[in-house]
Amino acid sequence: MKREVAILGATGTVGQRFIELLQGHPWFEISVLAASERSAGKKYKEACKWRMETPMPEAVEDMTVVNTNLKEVKQAGNVDFVFSALPGSIAGPIEEEFAVEYPVVSKASAHRMKSDVPLIIPEVNPDHLQLISVQKKNRGWNGFISTDPNCSTIQLAITLKALMKFGVENVIVSTMQALSGAGYPGVPSLDIIDNVVPYISGEEEKMENETRKILGTFYGEEIQPANITISASCHRVNVKDGHLEAVYVGLEQKPTIEEVKEAFRNFVGEPQRLKLPTAPERPIIVKEEIDRPQPRFDRDAGKGMSVVVGRIREDPIMTVKYLCLGHNTIRGAAGAGILSAELMVKKGLL
Amino acid sequence: MKREVAILGATGTVGQRFIELLQGHPWFEISVLAASERSAGKKYKEACKWRMETPMPEAVEDMTVVNTNLKEVKQAGNVDFVFSALPGSIAGPIEEEFAVEYPVVSKASAHRMKSDVPLIIPEVNPDHLQLISVQKKNRGWNGFISTDPNCSTIQLAITLKALMKFGVENVIVSTMQALSGAGYPGVPSLDIIDNVVPYISGEEEKMENETRKILGTFYGEEIQPANITISASCHRVNVKDGHLEAVYVGLEQKPTIEEVKEAFRNFVGEPQRLKLPTAPERPIIVKEEIDRPQPRFDRDAGKGMSVVVGRIREDPIMTVKYLCLGHNTIRGAAGAGILSAELMVKKGLL
Amino acid sequence: MKREVAILGATGTVGQRFIELLQGHPWFEISVLAASERSAGKKYKEACKWRMETPMPEAVEDMTVVNTNLKEVKQAGNVDFVFSALPGSIAGPIEEEFAVEYPVVSKASAHRMKSDVPLIIPEVNPDHLQLISVQKKNRGWNGFISTDPNCSTIQLAITLKALMKFGVENVIVSTMQALSGAGYPGVPSLDIIDNVVPYISGEEEKMENETRKILGTFYGEEIQPANITISASCHRVNVKDGHLEAVYVGLEQKPTIEEVKEAFRNFVGEPQRLKLPTAPERPIIVKEEIDRPQPRFDRDAGKGMSVVVGRIREDPIMTVKYLCLGHNTIRGAAGAGILSAELMVKKGLL
Amino acid sequence: MKREVAILGATGTVGQRFIELLQGHPWFEISVLAASERSAGKKYKEACKWRMETPMPEAVEDMTVVNTNLKEVKQAGNVDFVFSALPGSIAGPIEEEFAVEYPVVSKASAHRMKSDVPLIIPEVNPDHLQLISVQKKNRGWNGFISTDPNCSTIQLAITLKALMKFGVENVIVSTMQALSGAGYPGVPSLDIIDNVVPYISGEEEKMENETRKILGTFYGEEIQPANITISASCHRVNVKDGHLEAVYVGLEQKPTIEEVKEAFRNFVGEPQRLKLPTAPERPIIVKEEIDRPQPRFDRDAGKGMSVVVGRIREDPIMTVKYLCLGHNTIRGAAGAGILSAELMVKKGLL
Repeated sequence: MKREVAILGATGTVGQRFIELLQGHPWFEISVLAASERSAGKKYKEACKWRMETPMPEAVEDMTVVNTNLKEVKQAGNVDFVFSALPGSIAGPIEEEFAVEYPVVSKASAHRMKSDVPLIIPEVNPDHLQLISVQKKNRGWNGFISTDPNCSTIQLAITLKALMKFGVENVIVSTMQALSGAGYPGVPSLDIIDNVVPYISGEEEKMENETRKILGTFYGEEIQPANITISASCHRVNVKDGHLEAVYVGLEQKPTIEEVKEAFRNFVGEPQRLKLPTAPERPIIVKEEIDRPQPRFDRDAGKGMSVVVGRIREDPIMTVKYLCLGHNTIRGAAGAGILSAELMVKKGLL
Repeated sequence: MKREVAILGATGTVGQRFIELLQGHPWFEISVLAASERSAGKKYKEACKWRMETPMPEAVEDMTVVNTNLKEVKQAGNVDFVFSALPGSIAGPIEEEFAVEYPVVSKASAHRMKSDVPLIIPEVNPDHLQLISVQKKNRGWNGFISTDPNCSTIQLAITLKALMKFGVENVIVSTMQALSGAGYPGVPSLDIIDNVVPYISGEEEKMENETRKILGTFYGEEIQPANITISASCHRVNVKDGHLEAVYVGLEQKPTIEEVKEAFRNFVGEPQRLKLPTAPERPIIVKEEIDRPQPRFDRDAGKGMSVVVGRIREDPIMTVKYLCLGHNTIRGAAGAGILSAELMVKKGLL
Repeated sequence: MKREVAILGATGTVGQRFIELLQGHPWFEISVLAASERSAGKKYKEACKWRMETPMPEAVEDMTVVNTNLKEVKQAGNVDFVFSALPGSIAGPIEEEFAVEYPVVSKASAHRMKSDVPLIIPEVNPDHLQLISVQKKNRGWNGFISTDPNCSTIQLAITLKALMKFGVENVIVSTMQALSGAGYPGVPSLDIIDNVVPYISGEEEKMENETRKILGTFYGEEIQPANITISASCHRVNVKDGHLEAVYVGLEQKPTIEEVKEAFRNFVGEPQRLKLPTAPERPIIVKEEIDRPQPRFDRDAGKGMSVVVGRIREDPIMTVKYLCLGHNTIRGAAGAGILSAELMVKKGLL
Repeated sequence: MKREVAILGATGTVGQRFIELLQGHPWFEISVLAASERSAGKKYKEACKWRMETPMPEAVEDMTVVNTNLKEVKQAGNVDFVFSALPGSIAGPIEEEFAVEYPVVSKASAHRMKSDVPLIIPEVNPDHLQLISVQKKNRGWNGFISTDPNCSTIQLAITLKALMKFGVENVIVSTMQALSGAGYPGVPSLDIIDNVVPYISGEEEKMENETRKILGTFYGEEIQPANITISASCHRVNVKDGHLEAVYVGLEQKPTIEEVKEAFRNFVGEPQRLKLPTAPERPIIVKEEIDRPQPRFDRDAGKGMSVVVGRIREDPIMTVKYLCLGHNTIRGAAGAGILSAELMVKKGLL
C-alpha cells in the first residue's frame, strides 16, 4: 500500500540522493524515473553517472528512464505524486504541467517565492501547507506545487525558528558551503583546490528572501513575510558535503547563552510529534566542544537530518552568535523533500 | 653599508619567510640565525625543514644556527637589530632580554597589548612608533620592542583605516583562514581534508583587541583605543596561504559604494610616500569581478603585500559589507615585520 | 558469554577504529582500554580526541583508561585476549609482557617478521596459525602473539593469493596511500595540500618482506617465504582513507584477462566458509567500470573488508596489471585484527 | 625584429600559459589570438576566464580575438608562425589548413603519430626536425606541422634519453597526474576531493606510443621507433600542477646508482648548447632528499622547464627505479612549444 512516486531529474545529484534515501522507505516507492531526452529510453544504470557513496539500489538499476513530460511519465507507471529534482532553470513550466494532475514536491527554486506556493520546512512552518488549497483554487489544478527551500536557507531557518520566542530582529550570516551544493559536474577542481570562491550566484538573495517567507505568517490567503532583516555573504569552500554558517542574530530580548542553548536543544516540530519516518529525533543538536560543528564530523548527525549548532556566544553588536551546520543534500535537499511529503501524507494532502 | 639583522626563530615557517623575503634586500642583511637548542650548532640547511616553494637562499645554507639567547647571538656576528619570529608562548622573556641591547621587531603576540609597546601597521599607525621613547624611558633599555599585529588583524585593519573617514562604529568579521597561519606542522591533514575547523585559539580576541589598539590614538604617553565594537568569528579552511574575511561595517556616514571603493583605491600611507622597498604601490586593490578576491589568485598581489578587496555591497543591517584577502605569511607576518623595520629606518629608530 | 578483550593503544586512530568496529560485535566485548600514562586515570571520552565519523560508542565513554602494562590491565577487568593497536616503535616489549598470560592479536609491526610469529590474513594463510604452538613452546608463554600485516600489504596479498594458481613470479607495485595510514596527527596539512609525498618510511620494505612471508608455506616448524620478487614504490596522496595500488604481476602461466577476473571473483577463504561475523561475502570485488576502483567510492565495499580490483589488463612486460583498493584502517588495520581473532576463536585459539 | 606569432586556442588553459610565458620573450611576439566562434570579436579580457595566477599581460587584454581559421587570422595581423593550443579533437583539419601557409608548432595530439610529422623534445630528438622537409615534400605545403608530445610523456622521455647509453629495454610507469592536465573546467571537484581517479582517457597509449617514436631513429625519410616496451598506468590525483611518475626501467647494462645519477645530472641537449632563451640550465635535476620530488615544491624548478628526479634505487625486477616530476603545463605544454620554436629558429625553420 505504499504511495508510488515519480522522480523528475532522476539522474542529477539531487535525484540520486532521493533514490538513495527512498530505499526501504516505509510509505513511498519509486515507480517512475524521469530525466532529460539524453537519458530517456536507457536503463537507469546506463543513463546515470552514480555519484553516491553507497551502491545504486538494485531496484532502480534496470528501470527505464523516461522523458520529463507528463504524458510519458503517466504511461510509464502508476504515480501518486512527484518529487522534482529538476534544475531551477527549467523546473518552472515542467512542474506546472505536472501539477495539473499530480502533487509536486519540489526542490527547485522556480516557484518558491510565488505567493500561493508553500515553501516548507516541516519543523518550522507546517501551517503554510494551507496555501495549497489557495493555490488549487487559483490555478484550477488537481495537483499542486509545494516547494522546499534552498539548502543554505533550511538550516539557518531551523535555528532561527528556535529563537523566534526571543524576538529575532536581524541576522547576519556568512556561509562556508560545500561543493555538492553546486551539483555535478559543478565546481571545477581547478577553481577550488587551495582556494575559496566567495560568490555563489543567487544564493545570498535566496537566503534573505526565503527565510523571511518561511518565518512569515499565514493569513488565510497568503503569507506575510517575517519582519526580519537578513544579510548573507555566501562562500564556497573545499568540502564535499555540509554547509557551515557563521550566524549573528539580533534579538529583542536578551536571553542568556544557556537559555539560547535550551531553546535549541528543546526545539521540536510536527515531524517529531507525528514521528514521521525521516524526522530526526532532535532537529537541532548543540555541541559543547569548542571547535564544532565541523562538516566532516557532524554532517551525518541524525542521518543527515539534524542541524548541528555550536560555539554559541554573546555578540557585542548583535545579540548572539553561533555556527550551524547541515547536510546540504540531505536536510538541505532530498531529505527535506521526503520529510515534506511525509508531513503531507499526515495532513491528507498526498 | 646594510644593517645587519639577527632572526630569532629562524627555522620556523615565519623565520623561513623572513629569510626568503630578505634575499637581496637593499637595506638589510642577515648576520645571525637563532633557533632552539635542538637546532643550535647545526648548519641552517641541516637544522631546518625548508617549507618555502622557492629554494633556500645559498647565503644561509651554511650559516651555523645559534641558540636563542642574547649572549650567543652577540658572539655570532654583528647585529644592528633583531627580527623575532618566535612562538608567542616563549617570546615574552626572550624578547625582553634582547631589547636591553637591541631593537626587536617582533611578529610574536607576547607584547602586543602592553601599553608601552607599539603595535604597528606602517600604512595605518606609523605615529604609534612614538611609544618607543616612552617604552625606553619606562624600561631603561638601550633597545626596544615593536610588534606587528596578528595576520588576520592586519588586513582587516588596513581596510578599516581607509574607511575611518566615514566613521567606523562597529565591525563584524567572519574569517576563512589559511593553514600556514597555524605554522608547521600545524593543522593535521586529517583535521582539514573535506572539512572546516570553525575555531582558532585566541584568534577572535586578537582581532577584536588588536584592531582597536591599532586604530587608536597616541596621546603623548599612551594609546587610546578606538571606540569601535568588533565581533570576530574565525574559521580554518583548506587553503595553503591567504586569509579571506567577510567583513560587515557599520559607519556613521552613509557613503555610496562608489565612495567606499574610492576610499579603498586611494588609500596610501607613509610606506608609499616614503617609497619603502617592501611597500606595495597600492596597499588596497579593489577587484570588480563578482567572485573575487580568491586566495589562490589574489594572495600574491603586490608581491603579497597588497590587501585585495571585492564584492563591496550595501549592508541592510550594518552599512557596507565586503570581502578582503591578504597573504597571511607575507603581509600578515614576515613582510609586515620587514616593512615596519624599513619605516623605523626612515624614522631614525634603527 | 562474549569473550572480553582489552585494547592496547586505545586512544590512537587504530584503537578508535577497533572500538568503533567492536560495537555490537556478537562474540567480543571490550572490557579494558589501555593507553599511555598521559591518558591513564581519565575517562575515555576525556583521554581521547575521537576522530571517527560515527559518534563515540556510549559503552566506552565513561570507561577509565588504564596504563598499558600487564598488572594494571589485569586489575581493570576480566580479559580473555588483547588487541594491540600500539605504535610499532613501542609495541615490542609490551606485547611480549602481555603474551606471557594472554593471546595478543597485534596490528603493530614489531613482531611481524619473527620466525615463530604468525603474520595472518584469514583468507590467505590461516594455516600459519600453527606457528602459535611453535611459539608457545619456544617462549614458554601461556599466551601468544599473532600479527596482522601492514595495511598496504594486506590488500596486495589478498589479490596475489587469488593469482597464485597461475604461478606468481614477480610483482611491481606503486601505491597511492591515504592520510589515515600515518595515524594522527600524522601528515601535516601543509605537506599534502596540492601535493604528493613520494615516500613513506619503512613501507616499501614491509610490502616486499611481509608479502613473501604471508604467501609462504608452513613446514611443521616455520614459514618458508614464497619465492616471489616484489618491488614497491610507496606514495602518500591527499585522500582520507583507502589505499590505491597499481599492480603489475609476472605469472608463469598466461591466463586470459577473463580467467584472471574469474580468479578474483571466485576467491574465498576460510572466513567465508566459516561465515565469520566480520568476513565480507566477497573478499575481492571486480569493478568493470573503466575508472574504478576509486578510494572515496569503493573503500567501504563489504563494510570496508572487501578489496576492490579494477582495470585488469594484459601487461606487455609483466603478465597482467590491475588496480586494487582497500580500506586501510578497516581491512588494513582494525578489521583485520578482528577477523583474525574470529578465526582464532573457530580454531580454538582464543 | 621579433617573429610574430598567432596562438590558436588562445582562451584555453594551454593558450593562457603560452600567453603568460611569451611575456617579454626576446624572439617572439604575439600578433593574433584566435579561439572559437563564441569568443571571436570580443576583447581577450572579455573572452577569456583567465586561470593563471599571474595577472593577464596588459599587451593582450584589449586584443580582439578572431575565429580560428586561416583567413581571419591572416587578416588580423602579421604572422610568422603559429602556436596551436587547440583541443586534440578539433586540431586535425585546422592545423592542416594553417600549415599550407604557416609553420604550426602544435601542442595538440592530432598529428603526433603521423609518419611525416616530427614529435619533438628539443633536448631529446632535435634531429627529427628533418622530417619537416619530408613532410613539406609529401604535402606540398609552404608551412608545416611540428608537434610536442603529451605532457606525461615529455618528462618520462627526457629521463629515458639520459639512460639510453645503458640500453633501455623496457619501462613500467605509474603516474600521479595533476588536475591542470585535464584543462578547464576539466575534472569536477566532486570527482577528486578525497579521491584518486585511476584512469585518464588515451593517456596510457600516448605514453607508450609517443615515447617509442621520440626515442626512435630518423632514417632519411622516416622514424624507426625505439625497440622499447613500455607499460603505463595513469592516475589523476588532487594536485594543481606537476605530474609525478614512478618509473621502473630495465636496462641492458647494470650501471651503479651513482652512474645513473651522473647520467641524469650531466644530461644536456641542443637547447643548452645553443643557449635557447627558454632552455633550463639543467634539463634534469637530481634530488637527494629521501622524500622528493614533490609536485608543490619541485614543479617550478628551472622555471618549470626542468624535470626533477629522485629516489633512484636499484630495482630487483627491472634494473633501476626512480620518481620523476615535471610541470605539466610548462615543460609539458606551453614551455615545450616555445622551446621547440626556439630550436626551429636556430635551425632556420622559422
